[in-house]
Amino acid sequence: MRKKSPNRKRARKRKVRNISETDRKLVKMAQDVLRQIEKGHPPSVEIPQRGLSNVIFDDDSRILKMGDKTSKRSFLNIAHTRKFMQTMLVASYAQKLVKDDKHAGIRELYYALKHSVGSSKENTFEEQGESNIIIEDLERMLDLLREQMNLTADRRGFIYGDIEIFDSGDRFNASKLGRGGWAVPGNIEDIKLKKSNVDYVLVVETAAMSDRLIEEKFPKDNNCLLVACQGQAPRGIRRLLSRLHLEMDLPVVVFTDGDPYGWYIYSTIKQGSINLAYLSNTLSVPKAKFVGMTMDDIETYDLKGVTEKLKDLDKKRIEEELKYPWFQNRKWQKQLQKCKKMGVRIEQQALANKSLEFVAKEYLPEKIENKNFLP
Amino acid sequence: MRKKSPNRKRARKRKVRNISETDRKLVKMAQDVLRQIEKGHPPSVEIPQRGLSNVIFDDDSRILKMGDKTSKRSFLNIAHTRKFMQTMLVASYAQKLVKDDKHAGIRELYYALKHSVGSSKENTFEEQGESNIIIEDLERMLDLLREQMNLTADRRGFIYGDIEIFDSGDRFNASKLGRGGWAVPGNIEDIKLKKSNVDYVLVVETAAMSDRLIEEKFPKDNNCLLVACQGQAPRGIRRLLSRLHLEMDLPVVVFTDGDPYGWYIYSTIKQGSINLAYLSNTLSVPKAKFVGMTMDDIETYDLKGVTEKLKDLDKKRIEEELKYPWFQNRKWQKQLQKCKKMGVRIEQQALANKSLEFVAKEYLPEKIENKNFLP
Repeated sequence: MRKKSPNRKRARKRKVRNISETDRKLVKMAQDVLRQIEKGHPPSVEIPQRGLSNVIFDDDSRILKMGDKTSKRSFLNIAHTRKFMQTMLVASYAQKLVKDDKHAGIRELYYALKHSVGSSKENTFEEQGESNIIIEDLERMLDLLREQMNLTADRRGFIYGDIEIFDSGDRFNASKLGRGGWAVPGNIEDIKLKKSNVDYVLVVETAAMSDRLIEEKFPKDNNCLLVACQGQAPRGIRRLLSRLHLEMDLPVVVFTDGDPYGWYIYSTIKQGSINLAYLSNTLSVPKAKFVGMTMDDIETYDLKGVTEKLKDLDKKRIEEELKYPWFQNRKWQKQLQKCKKMGVRIEQQALANKSLEFVAKEYLPEKIENKNFLP
Repeated sequence: MRKKSPNRKRARKRKVRNISETDRKLVKMAQDVLRQIEKGHPPSVEIPQRGLSNVIFDDDSRILKMGDKTSKRSFLNIAHTRKFMQTMLVASYAQKLVKDDKHAGIRELYYALKHSVGSSKENTFEEQGESNIIIEDLERMLDLLREQMNLTADRRGFIYGDIEIFDSGDRFNASKLGRGGWAVPGNIEDIKLKKSNVDYVLVVETAAMSDRLIEEKFPKDNNCLLVACQGQAPRGIRRLLSRLHLEMDLPVVVFTDGDPYGWYIYSTIKQGSINLAYLSNTLSVPKAKFVGMTMDDIETYDLKGVTEKLKDLDKKRIEEELKYPWFQNRKWQKQLQKCKKMGVRIEQQALANKSLEFVAKEYLPEKIENKNFLP
């Protein structure tokens, strides 16, 4: 199912300019502020607005994009002073990280910058939520991933299969690590993806299903990479998928539970989340396909006996997903409506009801061979 | 800090007899039941009782042990019939797994065995909780880990550092995998731990702190393995720690947040959980030591500004931990009482308030060098 695309050059270009670009943008923002002060003007920065009203779904590229509405954050506006101070602190810390070639977790950043201001009892930050928001602001202001500012999200998930990876002087193949696979770091900006002979990437929601597919030798027999996201895909995994797609021209196929949460995981991998729409270009895979589970599977594979009842949160999520721009097509609307009507969910592992081998020997190969995907 | 111990032979012996021992025990149980039926007796099995009343803390070996109280589970007692049927189903499935050299997740087992009984509307299992309990019963009845019955818990966590691992025909060193490390499978019964030149194992609660220590080259500079448990240690990680200790004679040092949940993670690694006391021999490391964080650290390292308030669940957990047999010593009682009194917790990552390097260059090396541990 492999297809070549002209993405490679674009991807490579983005990598090379990373560090210098980050440093340049952070320094430029600081110089702008300094210049305002030197001119005797009250210093301020322009920040793209967050929220749905400033998000556009681009029908051509099929990704979420940031609109052009901005807000001014001004030091001498008493409603903005605290946030302005926080913005300068976080930007300064990030610039130091990049200069020193160090990385920090976003929780480390919070603790590193938390202190009382002068002799007052006022703290720079009261809780991590405050610094997280500033990081998002900077990402939108500077059009940079936090990872490009050497800020790292918590990691989870692993990759298994025939790909050579080059990281910190080590070169290894992720198919030569027993049944374990490579634990994907939170920040993968500096790794190099080398030779791979696979045809596509299969993303799997649960670690247990990944273990099943590894035991059944699915990645080897079907010439694919397996990426376990272990729940909602963390940023390291999303960035890895985006890079595998852009740099290695690999199609991405997603395999989750058949329920509103599984479909939400797919949606995030494919399009990005609405809250972080501005990151879609480098964190999402708009051409990703969904292989299952679907509500149709329950009938096709006679799984009625092993469904579970929907919870209230599931029902709420269906209503949200019915409105997602990228689910505005016949196939997805049908599955979502069907789920609502049937009131049940079906888990990946319910396929074990047929036999342990079934998922690897019949379900996935047949669906993938026949391109029986949801868009 | 390395010490040699006579554990190796015992550990090796346990591994070799795994599969045949499991098969033998499962078959023997089935034959006993069959013999009762053939004699015209109502079939039954003896199951060690669960719960605190059948758990003993062995002061010599410092681990939890199962007491000798048992209950009879009889097919013709209407209160037991369903559970008896479930016990036979799970045992039979496990025996088939072992014979076929296959592994199944405990969720797969649930789905594989779920079906209606005969022409009735009665299901063999209504929810996974039912099959989980039967698995625990079998573990206690047969003195076997579920992993030895080829049943696998969900996986999480990774290992990083200088150890050669042999798994499924692959041989690799976990210090040669960039910054990623090896993703530890849910079932590690079949892997072989080969040469390692390290002095000890450092268990780290969070992935983000592990990333920090990897970036600071802590494992290399301090000649240790790093194991990230990413929250409460999953069974694959606990079993790995136990094997590293028993087979490689490596001391285990645990580094968690300074709060009741972190101390609970330590407690489980060290002694096993009260609910699964019967597994302590092969899943716990009674000689593990605790390096931090402690309440004393808050004063010693001037971290008052970066503590967080305790939540209700934390407070409840302190009361439980005050009663744990292995916390009945002056040092732990002091920390627990201090936490209760101060009403705050301190996270690993709060050490970033000193500097990013502080944890790797000062905090851990000093404490470990001076053996400034809690027991």
